[in-house]
Amino acid sequence: MPDDSIERQDCPPMRPAVSRRALLASLAAGAGTGVGVALAIGANDAAAPPLVQSAETPSVERFYGTHQPGIATASQRFAVFAAFDLETGDDAGGAPAGARVAVNFQHLMKRWSDVAAALMAGTPAGPLPVNRAGAPADSGIADGLAPSRLTVTFGLGPELFDRIGRNDLRPKRLRELPAFSTDRLQPAWSGGQLFVQICGDDPQTISHAFRSLRGRAPGLARLRWSQQGFLGRFGAATARNLFGQKDGTANPRPGTAAFDDAVWAHGDEPAWFAGGTYLVFCKIRMNLPKWDTSTAREQELAIGRRRDTGAPLSGGHEFSPLDFSSTGPDGRPLIAPDSHLALVRDVPMLRRSYNYDYAFQVAADPADGHHADRPGHSHDDPLHDHAGAGHDGYDTGMLFCAYLRDPADFVRAQQKMAAADRLNAFVEHTGSAVFAIPPGVQPGRPLAAALFPRR
Amino acid sequence: MPDDSIERQDCPPMRPAVSRRALLASLAAGAGTGVGVALAIGANDAAAPPLVQSAETPSVERFYGTHQPGIATASQRFAVFAAFDLETGDDAGGAPAGARVAVNFQHLMKRWSDVAAALMAGTPAGPLPVNRAGAPADSGIADGLAPSRLTVTFGLGPELFDRIGRNDLRPKRLRELPAFSTDRLQPAWSGGQLFVQICGDDPQTISHAFRSLRGRAPGLARLRWSQQGFLGRFGAATARNLFGQKDGTANPRPGTAAFDDAVWAHGDEPAWFAGGTYLVFCKIRMNLPKWDTSTAREQELAIGRRRDTGAPLSGGHEFSPLDFSSTGPDGRPLIAPDSHLALVRDVPMLRRSYNYDYAFQVAADPADGHHADRPGHSHDDPLHDHAGAGHDGYDTGMLFCAYLRDPADFVRAQQKMAAADRLNAFVEHTGSAVFAIPPGVQPGRPLAAALFPRR
Ligand code: HEM
Ligand code: HEM
Repeated sequence: MPDDSIERQDCPPMRPAVSRRALLASLAAGAGTGVGVALAIGANDAAAPPLVQSAETPSVERFYGTHQPGIATASQRFAVFAAFDLETGDDAGGAPAGARVAVNFQHLMKRWSDVAAALMAGTPAGPLPVNRAGAPADSGIADGLAPSRLTVTFGLGPELFDRIGRNDLRPKRLRELPAFSTDRLQPAWSGGQLFVQICGDDPQTISHAFRSLRGRAPGLARLRWSQQGFLGRFGAATARNLFGQKDGTANPRPGTAAFDDAVWAHGDEPAWFAGGTYLVFCKIRMNLPKWDTSTAREQELAIGRRRDTGAPLSGGHEFSPLDFSSTGPDGRPLIAPDSHLALVRDVPMLRRSYNYDYAFQVAADPADGHHADRPGHSHDDPLHDHAGAGHDGYDTGMLFCAYLRDPADFVRAQQKMAAADRLNAFVEHTGSAVFAIPPGVQPGRPLAAALFPRR
Repeated sequence: MPDDSIERQDCPPMRPAVSRRALLASLAAGAGTGVGVALAIGANDAAAPPLVQSAETPSVERFYGTHQPGIATASQRFAVFAAFDLETGDDAGGAPAGARVAVNFQHLMKRWSDVAAALMAGTPAGPLPVNRAGAPADSGIADGLAPSRLTVTFGLGPELFDRIGRNDLRPKRLRELPAFSTDRLQPAWSGGQLFVQICGDDPQTISHAFRSLRGRAPGLARLRWSQQGFLGRFGAATARNLFGQKDGTANPRPGTAAFDDAVWAHGDEPAWFAGGTYLVFCKIRMNLPKWDTSTAREQELAIGRRRDTGAPLSGGHEFSPLDFSSTGPDGRPLIAPDSHLALVRDVPMLRRSYNYDYAFQVAADPADGHHADRPGHSHDDPLHDHAGAGHDGYDTGMLFCAYLRDPADFVRAQQKMAAADRLNAFVEHTGSAVFAIPPGVQPGRPLAAALFPRR
């Protein structure tokens, strides 16, 4: 049932697939992109019947362009992140493995570019390659739904270029992240040759998009990991993370030179990569029990800002400049030198992170039922033991996303954090990956087409 | 970043905790409940700055009343379901275990009733019992957020009454569900002495509420399982499940006699239970690869309705009456006798289900990293092998919730389904639980106070 359901008998029967198509074609025609449009969208993006509001609901982001969508796009409320690995194609005969992988890559980029364009516009994406005769072309789960600012963003992992034999065109700054002393990485959540970020304001259109993309991978690539996050409905205010902090205050604003400088690829990158960027993705578990039972003072010192207002401890309001020199009555700096802010200040990046709260989903593996022995579940890892519930599997935190022109800047910040940051006591990096994010797609030319096999 | 973020410099600094409190007090004063109000809410429940829209955003549902909230409430867009077990309290001295458990129950109901009332009204819930001196009273993650129709609904499992020594007051129809031949239940996702359903239109207020409830459990109860679901933004149209079907068409409408008859407890129940109901909760995995590669005809026959419009196969539109006698050119009934509809028709219940799409979250257990061996992941269970990705851990489906006055009606329907339903080929019950849902709470008297220990 929808959130504004009323007496259904009063509603005229709808033909969702048809009305949706007509609606969305008209939307796509009038759609823009970026921040200005996003504001208009935010204001109109109400829950009441989207089909009725079609004219005033420009909830379509543009797929084609200089840059990929989902980066400068104002953050949507939900996101799925997933990594895939190319199939080696050992079941096919003929060509050597490397060549087959390169061809798989080409096919997949072609399929995914087409389907992403259709999904974002809300138009039919056509039948799945695996469909039997008589099967519906689409799962239909988004019939009647507007795209709700859906964006699909693709990335390429360090390992990929070797796999497809195109190390000659590898973006210069793409290499595996070094190990950090604070890591507690799970291989199952890390790395990947191909990356997909799907963001939007409706989890059901995201579920639909992910399914449509997965459904085009068989034989070409396999899902390696996925994660999903949300943001609260904070309107124009800075969203809060699950430590209760305003998170994103210092981000560069799209449309400014500071943003372009922080995000879009340097001029010395391979020509095909102009308009691209890099993404560092980290799954960071946050120890809520420990955080919730620490003092307000400890919390503030860990970051260098007030938790309630987001104002720097050196004074002012959320957007006041940081003053690292001002000291308190005890003569110590108001913003502690081992606070998060003091360590990571001025590292140029766009943080476009999401909160996650998986609760127990992770621990209860249906394949082995190893929690059948509950309630005997006291474990030794404090991160797993919520003060409120005392359970090992509780998983919540941040899906940290940094878009930046040089992953080395992330590495620098992360190394400083690992060495000293007061936040370390409360967080744990359990997954990480780095990707080159190719430039935007032009109609008729798939994503990363420059990397396709030479003929 | 929020979904309608703009140049933050333009925003006046806010004092979220304060404005929120003032806002919400005024909201709570004017708030109603039920379907009529929900419509108004749906229409106003936009993404743009909620604090600015305070006057027209009555996003508060009422906690106190004859019935608990979250049942007749028009479905919100997100839900968390969780079960807890009472602590045996073996660390405390003195009283025999049974008496201690009963006291734990009393304390918890008191704490939870108070915090649920505050959360739903959007007012401060006060410090956690585990807080140290100097710790903030609240996590703050919902500061600046309206409650977005938050509801908290509590239930009591069959085992509970024995544990607290109140079998004398046990609702007559509360017993464990029998085993069904189609079950593939995971103990880790089934049963439970205490149940909490948290619904709302913002996942962050839900995460906040769940944390606030968990944080009041230590020493009294332990989290046993949790699940989380969503619905697409279908407005006034019937929401679609992840098979693409309109799901909820035949539900009784709140405010009708049919609804009251289907949902609220029979008159022969113990007096304290008047205004209560029962919940049958099932985690049902849906085999999307199999569904997506079946034909449109197979899909229709499995249910007895068209997938696109929801119209019965006997003709008409979504809300046309079902005609089981009309036959097709082949002389066979248009609605097949082994279709879902033919089997479960007219079983009185309110289905208030949610979709879930956990992707891989379940399989990747951080505690054991047993997927470190990827990508060697072809497995034998077809449910785990998505046509699009070929992976064992992909978990998606329906969190089926039936509110009804007699769980035996569910059992009857489920037995018929297990014996014959064409849907069985596509679904798998992996978790189930049944709870008595006590009547609504009155100020000053906690939930289920009738069950507290006699003095
Ligand atoms: C769960 C882990 C983390 C939490 C809770 C967190 C939280 C915060 C908060 C509250 C702020 C201040 C408000 C703002 O400007 O957004 C901030 C700033 C920042 N964080 Fe983090 N952060 C985390 C991890 C990281 C990581 C891994 C990096 C990169 C290595 C990073 C880089 C930054 C940067 C560059 C700033 C802006 C500093 C400035 O110039 O003022 N953060 N973070
Ligand atoms: C994943 C599993 C299930 C799916 C996909 C499913 C789907 C559907 C659909 C599409 C309808 C028709 C539209 C509507 O009236 O809502 C329906 C109706 C119904 N379902 Fe299910 N269902 C499932 C499981 C169950 C279970 C476990 C029960 C209870 C044992 C149940 C009971 C009913 C009832 C009572 C109706 C209304 C029939 C009528 O009077 O017209 N369903 N279901």
